[in-house]
Amino acid sequence: MFKIQDYIRDIQNFPKPGIVYKDITPLLQDPVAARKTTDALLETLGDVKVDKVVGIESRGFFFATLLAERLNAGFIPIRKPGKLPYETFSESYSLEYGEDVLEIHCDAIKPGEKVLLHDDVLATGGTAEAACKLIEKMGGEIVQCNFLMDLDFLKGKEKLKKYKVASLLTV
Amino acid sequence: MFKIQDYIRDIQNFPKPGIVYKDITPLLQDPVAARKTTDALLETLGDVKVDKVVGIESRGFFFATLLAERLNAGFIPIRKPGKLPYETFSESYSLEYGEDVLEIHCDAIKPGEKVLLHDDVLATGGTAEAACKLIEKMGGEIVQCNFLMDLDFLKGKEKLKKYKVASLLTV
Repeated sequence: MFKIQDYIRDIQNFPKPGIVYKDITPLLQDPVAARKTTDALLETLGDVKVDKVVGIESRGFFFATLLAERLNAGFIPIRKPGKLPYETFSESYSLEYGEDVLEIHCDAIKPGEKVLLHDDVLATGGTAEAACKLIEKMGGEIVQCNFLMDLDFLKGKEKLKKYKVASLLTV
Repeated sequence: MFKIQDYIRDIQNFPKPGIVYKDITPLLQDPVAARKTTDALLETLGDVKVDKVVGIESRGFFFATLLAERLNAGFIPIRKPGKLPYETFSESYSLEYGEDVLEIHCDAIKPGEKVLLHDDVLATGGTAEAACKLIEKMGGEIVQCNFLMDLDFLKGKEKLKKYKVASLLTV
């Protein structure tokens, strides 16, 4: 049986001492495992119409493009400041020290569109929450936020209480 | 008839004055156009076995994941320094002023594997050339380098003379 955890590698002390980083490159490297992962994400979604799949820079891009293709939906990148070339909306969010900003193109989502948000990891939820705010600012309706992994001890889900949230793995 | 240029937006003076940036987000946003783009890239490749599709951070990731899925091949990211968590090989390349570095995971490609390299834009060719060197250092055999666009006036193709190169659009 396919277990996503068999394709995720723990890297100790990356990017900082004390952090155990979840490396998904073994999963991406295996085409069968990657396909089963896309299947599993779609299964959590069920039979819901999706107009746009939003992926968060940059590890969210990998499966967001695959989900968009399978759902016959548009793919929309949410990126760090200064990366998107056209007019953008932006949203800031708090980090442990200071804050960061996410941007989306102003023509990415039309009012009333059904939006699936994807990222690889749900950690503190700050990034995903800011992404949801951007999508809603544009009139998009978030049908689900899905993740490969939920780092449960960081309580990210609490920031996303308003939304349907699914993760393939809780660690 | 599908024309990729209908889905690419020129952005004047981005990221610097005097540069016309080719924005592919309208293409990504349209699922039919995105699928036809993947089809067209596969058509340039022909009936060649591919073990790994390498995408260059980060706009190369979009179609590289889709190509890998269609080819039933592994997807491998080449990233900027410090982003890949496991042991890496790195390669530096010259920019107009100074130099930059690309990294690949040391377990990404096995000797003898057939590799397709993808990026969105072929500009001066410096990035693609460095990516090819990384792949070859690991014993990979590059079966093609493909791009959505070739900015012909920057003569990137000259740096990739050793390889089969295909672009959907020459500008």
